[in-house]
Amino acid sequence: MSVRIDLAQGILDDNDLIAMATSERLHSAHVLCVGLLSSPGAGKTTLLEATARAWSDPTRLGVIVGDVATEVDSARLRACRMPAVQINTASHGASCHLSAGPVAEALDAFDLPRLDVLFIENVGNLVCPVAFRLGEHYRSVLLSVTEGPDKPVKYPKAILDTDLAVITKADLCPHVDVPAAEVEQNVRRVRPDARVLTVSARGEPGVGAWLGWLDEMLAAMCCTK
Amino acid sequence: MSVRIDLAQGILDDNDLIAMATSERLHSAHVLCVGLLSSPGAGKTTLLEATARAWSDPTRLGVIVGDVATEVDSARLRACRMPAVQINTASHGASCHLSAGPVAEALDAFDLPRLDVLFIENVGNLVCPVAFRLGEHYRSVLLSVTEGPDKPVKYPKAILDTDLAVITKADLCPHVDVPAAEVEQNVRRVRPDARVLTVSARGEPGVGAWLGWLDEMLAAMCCTK
Repeated sequence: MSVRIDLAQGILDDNDLIAMATSERLHSAHVLCVGLLSSPGAGKTTLLEATARAWSDPTRLGVIVGDVATEVDSARLRACRMPAVQINTASHGASCHLSAGPVAEALDAFDLPRLDVLFIENVGNLVCPVAFRLGEHYRSVLLSVTEGPDKPVKYPKAILDTDLAVITKADLCPHVDVPAAEVEQNVRRVRPDARVLTVSARGEPGVGAWLGWLDEMLAAMCCTK
Repeated sequence: MSVRIDLAQGILDDNDLIAMATSERLHSAHVLCVGLLSSPGAGKTTLLEATARAWSDPTRLGVIVGDVATEVDSARLRACRMPAVQINTASHGASCHLSAGPVAEALDAFDLPRLDVLFIENVGNLVCPVAFRLGEHYRSVLLSVTEGPDKPVKYPKAILDTDLAVITKADLCPHVDVPAAEVEQNVRRVRPDARVLTVSARGEPGVGAWLGWLDEMLAAMCCTK
């Protein structure tokens, strides 16, 4: 007796293939797609608010926001004139991370030809989201100095499987007795060639380094319109 | 043809049943078991360090520490004279939370009749650990003011399925512009009858409220030896 196994079905269901299609769709539309991962409260939404304030036209920045519950973050970003789609992961099976399927569906809500950058802000979680590609061209992990200096070594895959480490809330370094240089050093213990930026959305040194990185990635992808 | 299905095997493998056995074993030994959940870097280890400094004999406090990688936290707690067992979850299947099996095995490393309290410090993650009981008699969730005021509403199960919310790093409230009262208010939006404490392990108001809660739970369990 021979058994016929439909491999194609299994492959087409795979999160990575949906993510790949999303990545290609956005590339064709000349939209840079940047994922943001971090612990809860590391400053993903605040960094995007600062990005919107600095962008010449914030309606050219889109964002898909993942949270277990609430529309808090998408409301904050819409208030900055960024088109935003909220995905509540409690309604999509596993609550602890975004998956490629709902993200791909969310693309239809955007006027893609108008966008420069689409951000995907994941559920606050330094473990699970790392394993699920969503279609981002680049992934950044935010590390708040308030979390202490050791998170890069305690969550090594969040460093190894992303393209950029952004040390956030640097204005709070003196108050928490954590130098940004120590966080950076721990990132490099996990990945010596890591790209690392230090920012503060509310004080010094500002978010210039992050904006510079976005400009560089846009130029590298020839996404400028 | 009849099929014999060994239901007992499946039931005995269940995380909850192992957790229940752990809970009973600790209760029989008159050891109070308290679980700690939080985002990465919300201050679980720092709160336990402060607890050890305040305890008359810190060798009567034990801790099982879960982390994806490193022995950083157990080393910190051993330096405070607390017996500590580290579990690296990357070696136990799902990295994002502790499971009852490895916790139950870790019990054998402790001199249980000597202990007043056994803490179980979970992997820093506000989603996945909530779903897996480990044998704790009480579960506390730590919410750092540096994460912003909205985490209770964004991660509601972390409030609903725990017994105590501990607002941490209260000394930083003025620097992050987040009043502890606002975090507490959001806890009560999810669960009006929640028990909530505010602490700072490094400044005012100290950790007295937390120590008082531990004393109360010890007295309620008649665990004092």
